[in-house]
Amino acid sequence: MRTINRQRYWQQLMRLGEITEAERPYTRRSFSECFLQGRAWLTEQMQAAGLTVHVDTAGNLIGRKAGTHPELGCIMIGSHSDSVPSGGRFDGMAGVIAGLECAQVLQDHHITLNHDLEIVDFLAEEPSEWGISCVGSRGISGYLTQDLINTPHPQSQETLADAVTRMGGDTTQLSLRTDVAQFLELHIEQGVVLEHKQIDIGVVTGIVGIIRLSLTLTGQAAHAGTTPMNLRKDTLAGAAEIILAAEKLAQQFSQREHGYFVATCGQVFNKPNASNVVPGRTQLVFDIRSDTRGWMEEFADALHQMIHNILPPRQLQLVEFERLTDTYPMQCDETLMQHIEAACKTEKASHQRMSSGAGHDAAFIAKLAPSAMIFVPSVDGKSHCPEEWTHEVDLSRGVAVLLQTLLSVDAAARPV
Amino acid sequence: MRTINRQRYWQQLMRLGEITEAERPYTRRSFSECFLQGRAWLTEQMQAAGLTVHVDTAGNLIGRKAGTHPELGCIMIGSHSDSVPSGGRFDGMAGVIAGLECAQVLQDHHITLNHDLEIVDFLAEEPSEWGISCVGSRGISGYLTQDLINTPHPQSQETLADAVTRMGGDTTQLSLRTDVAQFLELHIEQGVVLEHKQIDIGVVTGIVGIIRLSLTLTGQAAHAGTTPMNLRKDTLAGAAEIILAAEKLAQQFSQREHGYFVATCGQVFNKPNASNVVPGRTQLVFDIRSDTRGWMEEFADALHQMIHNILPPRQLQLVEFERLTDTYPMQCDETLMQHIEAACKTEKASHQRMSSGAGHDAAFIAKLAPSAMIFVPSVDGKSHCPEEWTHEVDLSRGVAVLLQTLLSVDAAARPV
Repeated sequence: MRTINRQRYWQQLMRLGEITEAERPYTRRSFSECFLQGRAWLTEQMQAAGLTVHVDTAGNLIGRKAGTHPELGCIMIGSHSDSVPSGGRFDGMAGVIAGLECAQVLQDHHITLNHDLEIVDFLAEEPSEWGISCVGSRGISGYLTQDLINTPHPQSQETLADAVTRMGGDTTQLSLRTDVAQFLELHIEQGVVLEHKQIDIGVVTGIVGIIRLSLTLTGQAAHAGTTPMNLRKDTLAGAAEIILAAEKLAQQFSQREHGYFVATCGQVFNKPNASNVVPGRTQLVFDIRSDTRGWMEEFADALHQMIHNILPPRQLQLVEFERLTDTYPMQCDETLMQHIEAACKTEKASHQRMSSGAGHDAAFIAKLAPSAMIFVPSVDGKSHCPEEWTHEVDLSRGVAVLLQTLLSVDAAARPV
Repeated sequence: MRTINRQRYWQQLMRLGEITEAERPYTRRSFSECFLQGRAWLTEQMQAAGLTVHVDTAGNLIGRKAGTHPELGCIMIGSHSDSVPSGGRFDGMAGVIAGLECAQVLQDHHITLNHDLEIVDFLAEEPSEWGISCVGSRGISGYLTQDLINTPHPQSQETLADAVTRMGGDTTQLSLRTDVAQFLELHIEQGVVLEHKQIDIGVVTGIVGIIRLSLTLTGQAAHAGTTPMNLRKDTLAGAAEIILAAEKLAQQFSQREHGYFVATCGQVFNKPNASNVVPGRTQLVFDIRSDTRGWMEEFADALHQMIHNILPPRQLQLVEFERLTDTYPMQCDETLMQHIEAACKTEKASHQRMSSGAGHDAAFIAKLAPSAMIFVPSVDGKSHCPEEWTHEVDLSRGVAVLLQTLLSVDAAARPV
């Protein structure tokens, strides 16, 4: 029986988690000394699993094992080993070590696949000090533009290009990977849906697009004691009305069928933000996500219209309405989703299809090749914090599903 | 004709304004070198006006002129020469120089009043680095408690007591002034009411009390992409609902007859305040002001009740509901108000009674003696900023009303 070694998987995952900045567990920031220590350890594990290891031009750490039919292209399994500051031990790492476990099982059973196999630790999936996410997966899919490469570090001024070089890459030699046949990524859900519904596995249908909107209102800062209620131009009160109107609209969108929608006002910057001054300038940032591009545009337009209705009676001005981020939803491959569902059946895992509300490397690799993702439940939905957790039994089930998917995808391919 | 010298008044006021930190006009912070320069200049002017100058134990600069009937007590005219950072040239200074001008007119005409006269520059009316306002007026009215005196400077650790000593005071010798017969203060309105109604003079009926309330909501910080709308505990959305409910209630209170009411949410502190995280902790600070103490309590109670209705459906908790400030309204003296109204008639100045929404030294001196205030219009209601302005013609009219009030109050007293 080709099956995973649960104990080995869990021990390796916990071992990687121990490689952290001591004073703020769990932190392994991309481009840092600690990150390189993690990669040195990963390299050893990959080599011990019979993989040939190299760093590609985009700075991705790749462990490769040749298949019997290299003309099929490679099956790539990957995620990332970097973390946010004071993050957890699962976001990214669970998927990298899951790929490693698959390679170890193949070695245990002396199996050679039809396809070449690559286990990838993508560089800098989390936004680094350069403010750019998914550096490695962008780098091999054509989305690491010259503008991004030239970004200087805010303090040291080192360019992102130079930082990638420090990691062993070479951004002057970036090229599209044309040999990827399929891509699979296991990841923690980072949400509460699977736990809430007591479902073992999320079969990801796609990754949401994101429109991040910044808007700024101006009114008149004024003395909180001497300015009568009817002579105020209070931007915080206007912002409050916008937040509530947007929340109500987002709830309506989220109840639509055949799609996923969320919108959040996570940031407020209020000026002068003094207890005795009527606010005169307030900025809000909205994060709008959906698997349906049309809904994102529809919401942004409706929000803009609502603001134009809210402001005039308050004598407030909208001086900024800008998209800080604007990405399209990504669709997972239907055939790969069916392979995952079949693997769930084999592993007796309950499952449901769901959108990913978070971004992942798979969103970029999907530009190159059919891609799919496997989600496992997150305890309390917590992520990007030290309390981030997935129960061992849930995570092992996910890794077993990944292995079965790999084997069935590989077997389904017929040599040309 | 006993009348003010408009040109002299305006020139002296502008001259005091020139004594500012060069890099951020107009700044003359209490306890600073610049503040002492201003006082040195003021001392010279007071002496030239025939006043005997000293600094009292509370650090107030006092110019005194003996009257013919010292048993009547003294008429005190005062305000403050210190400013907020990057403040204006009128808030406080207009009143101090107005007192100086009255003394100069008496000297011009060789007039000796029945009462002793004191022109006072109260120490540190604006909150200083020690976070305490009205240091000097508190000091002579029994409100500069030992707790306040022992407050250390946040950086240097110098106590407020030692700082008052640097100004020439001695907080170990504080005592209540029992010899003040009446107190008068001229001040800019710092609001838009007089300008809006095109009224020359505000006859202040009282100074509002202030309840400053801090409240903190907790919910659950969560991923903005992966947390469905119906599973959120979003504290910023809850806070927005509270801000709007409070605004609506404040508007209702402000429309009541026979009283003044304003309430403001000027501060919001949102955590983690990241665009991609549903807010999990939000603090609001409300500033509630009225000339009617009962309304302040009624509003605070109603706000608390509203919050308890708003939070449960949102699954949010109220973890803090604290009064940071709690002062009572002060009432101006009816007889003095009538003297001011008579002086307005003499000076052909239109006038109306109004509450002061801002705090002033008069609020403390009113504990000692009958007190009243004269407001002059502020252009655009601006204050605490370099653009703070009152037209010369408006300000001169106010100073003339102050002089006439002083003379009529003095004349009305009969020697015992």
